[in-house]
Amino acid sequence: MINIAILGYGTVGSGVYEVFRTNKALIEQRLGEPIHVKYVLDLRDFPGDPVEEVLVHDFDTIVNDPDISIAAEVMGGTGAAYVFTKKALEAGISVCTSNKALVAEHGRELMQIARDKGVSYLFEASCGGGIPIIRAINDSLIADAIDEVAGILNGTTNYMLFKMAEEGSDFDEVLKEAQAMGYAEADPTADVEGHDACRKIAILSTLAYGKFIDYHDIPTEGITKITTEDMKYAKAIRSRIKLLGLSRETEEGTIAIVAPFMVNESESLYNVNDVFNGIYVHGNMLGDAMFYGSGAGKLPTASAVASDIVDAAIHLHKTVRTNWNNEPARMVEPGEAEWNFYVRTKGVKITEAESLFAKPKGVQIPECPEEMAYTTGMMKQSEFDKAVEKLGDKLISSIRIFNRN
Amino acid sequence: MINIAILGYGTVGSGVYEVFRTNKALIEQRLGEPIHVKYVLDLRDFPGDPVEEVLVHDFDTIVNDPDISIAAEVMGGTGAAYVFTKKALEAGISVCTSNKALVAEHGRELMQIARDKGVSYLFEASCGGGIPIIRAINDSLIADAIDEVAGILNGTTNYMLFKMAEEGSDFDEVLKEAQAMGYAEADPTADVEGHDACRKIAILSTLAYGKFIDYHDIPTEGITKITTEDMKYAKAIRSRIKLLGLSRETEEGTIAIVAPFMVNESESLYNVNDVFNGIYVHGNMLGDAMFYGSGAGKLPTASAVASDIVDAAIHLHKTVRTNWNNEPARMVEPGEAEWNFYVRTKGVKITEAESLFAKPKGVQIPECPEEMAYTTGMMKQSEFDKAVEKLGDKLISSIRIFNRN
Repeated sequence: MINIAILGYGTVGSGVYEVFRTNKALIEQRLGEPIHVKYVLDLRDFPGDPVEEVLVHDFDTIVNDPDISIAAEVMGGTGAAYVFTKKALEAGISVCTSNKALVAEHGRELMQIARDKGVSYLFEASCGGGIPIIRAINDSLIADAIDEVAGILNGTTNYMLFKMAEEGSDFDEVLKEAQAMGYAEADPTADVEGHDACRKIAILSTLAYGKFIDYHDIPTEGITKITTEDMKYAKAIRSRIKLLGLSRETEEGTIAIVAPFMVNESESLYNVNDVFNGIYVHGNMLGDAMFYGSGAGKLPTASAVASDIVDAAIHLHKTVRTNWNNEPARMVEPGEAEWNFYVRTKGVKITEAESLFAKPKGVQIPECPEEMAYTTGMMKQSEFDKAVEKLGDKLISSIRIFNRN
Repeated sequence: MINIAILGYGTVGSGVYEVFRTNKALIEQRLGEPIHVKYVLDLRDFPGDPVEEVLVHDFDTIVNDPDISIAAEVMGGTGAAYVFTKKALEAGISVCTSNKALVAEHGRELMQIARDKGVSYLFEASCGGGIPIIRAINDSLIADAIDEVAGILNGTTNYMLFKMAEEGSDFDEVLKEAQAMGYAEADPTADVEGHDACRKIAILSTLAYGKFIDYHDIPTEGITKITTEDMKYAKAIRSRIKLLGLSRETEEGTIAIVAPFMVNESESLYNVNDVFNGIYVHGNMLGDAMFYGSGAGKLPTASAVASDIVDAAIHLHKTVRTNWNNEPARMVEPGEAEWNFYVRTKGVKITEAESLFAKPKGVQIPECPEEMAYTTGMMKQSEFDKAVEKLGDKLISSIRIFNRN
């Protein structure tokens, strides 16, 4: 029997508890031995909940119990979660987590401790919720050189952008609606400013390219400036606006960004709508692959944490092999990265556009007769920035266009 | 150093050779030791090809070499491939294959030998080409009870159906085009009659539900009867016709089928077009997930074989855990399975339709003014069969409608 502890009985923690209760027999059959939730740590009490039998309030009970070989850290944040994870790993307990903030912030140190202690620090649930993207990158693409990862990694913003496009509502309306439905938090900053997606693409890219990518080095733009007019232009060019976490491995180094992109209907990511997540990966042998599913939610996320727990149980007292590497990646300067752009102007004529942008193609929509928008050929970010500066107040907005390598 | 042999230097075999040549350094870094292709077995000679250095014509050279710990069986068929796989496993050599016919036909025996000998028989490449669906089912969904698998598993037929829908060409024209492009073989029977998809859904379902599903027990219909008119009706109900391999785990047992289905635009499988494959999986905790990519082709398939080889190398002298189980599944009688149907008639009126079908809804298209088509509510296959029998020659065609559980 393998004894585990769940640190935190919030949404994901109660989900993990439910997975091991509901699928107990099945997991035992697949693993060859039972997994027993010996402790659930939470500061609160839960009178009447079956968790009461195993509830403890003191982390020391867990870390000092030699029976415990695996812990699920599903508390979130980088405070107590960091302290407990570190102590657990140092005590020879493998830790499985959904905590992208902690992995992005302290992953280097925690992975090193896990390796030194011969245990595992696993985080399938940290990116893409239930979508098994991390195992795909680590194991399934083990014979491939991955050169691109592009993901819709945040369900809240994907829901909001989809609603804006479908219903013609503006950002503030849709945010209120998303908050009312529980999809967006009271303070939506982490989602709408792209911070959540930034941590996720940092983690995925670190695994994809086998070099550490610091999330601080990833230029990050949110969706707060996207307007209903941008949505109409998107439709006119058969695209949807998606918040992408995107990275590319090039000869010059790693490009990484979080920003809204125009995604054409020919792309598989175009059809990742509502609260769903989708992650596109390109391997030099595999070619294109996409992984799609629930990017958040109690049970999908818990399913991913539970799969890591079973993996840690299969590899007890070993470090599960992953592509994680603490050596820092060589990052391409953001200004050097090349993109196609959509740029919306106050009636800038094609001759002027041609003097500023690579191969501009005009787009007009009946709703905005005074305006002229362009899509451009590939341009360096720094050159594009200079060009729009010259436009002055004739610039209304600009958004990158997703084009695969 | 891990020495491997590649059995067969055809399309996939030469791809596997290429993967280990192109990504040699990367694979060595990830595995911690180099993988060396010591032999490639083929009856033919390849003058001037770098493979010449390692080419052998005699399987005994490989099976009698104690250096060889892993073999890639990429010959195809169930003749020599069966004999060589069996001998290799019995000699303690792990075998990784893309050969769905062999896995579906002799998987039980070969898995048993592998387990008895403490080695692995792995077949990620047998279903979905480069899409890592088998590892997802075995490992990523290890804490989930999977209750549905629905896949577009054959790129040739998906390409043909897509072309028929887009271009309005009929089956014979599109088949010729597919043959000219090398997507369809000279004898297209295995693809267009659904035999290829049948073997694949048998393998996937065996792993998903953990009981052996014999492909002979799966009712299989191909796409040869699909007409351009059916395509137009599909469009009218905002659907595309897709050849699905589909299985469900129910309280009454396992339902499995290969047949064309109407797939609504709200389904993620709707957007799996051209030669791509897509596999939808539902887990009781995970919810919906979909995996998308190149279902065939030299390098995508080789990438999957190579990932198995690295997996076998990581677990050398062990049997990699999978959900494979030789205990036979309890299959639901095909007549007992329930579906929604599309049924196309020579002007059958709604009152008659209501006497025959569950909740029929009429669909008419301008191109066929003499006709009347209906979509039905859920009906047992046997009841539907009786109803259409009563229609006599007023029946033109019928196709199931994909509806998730």
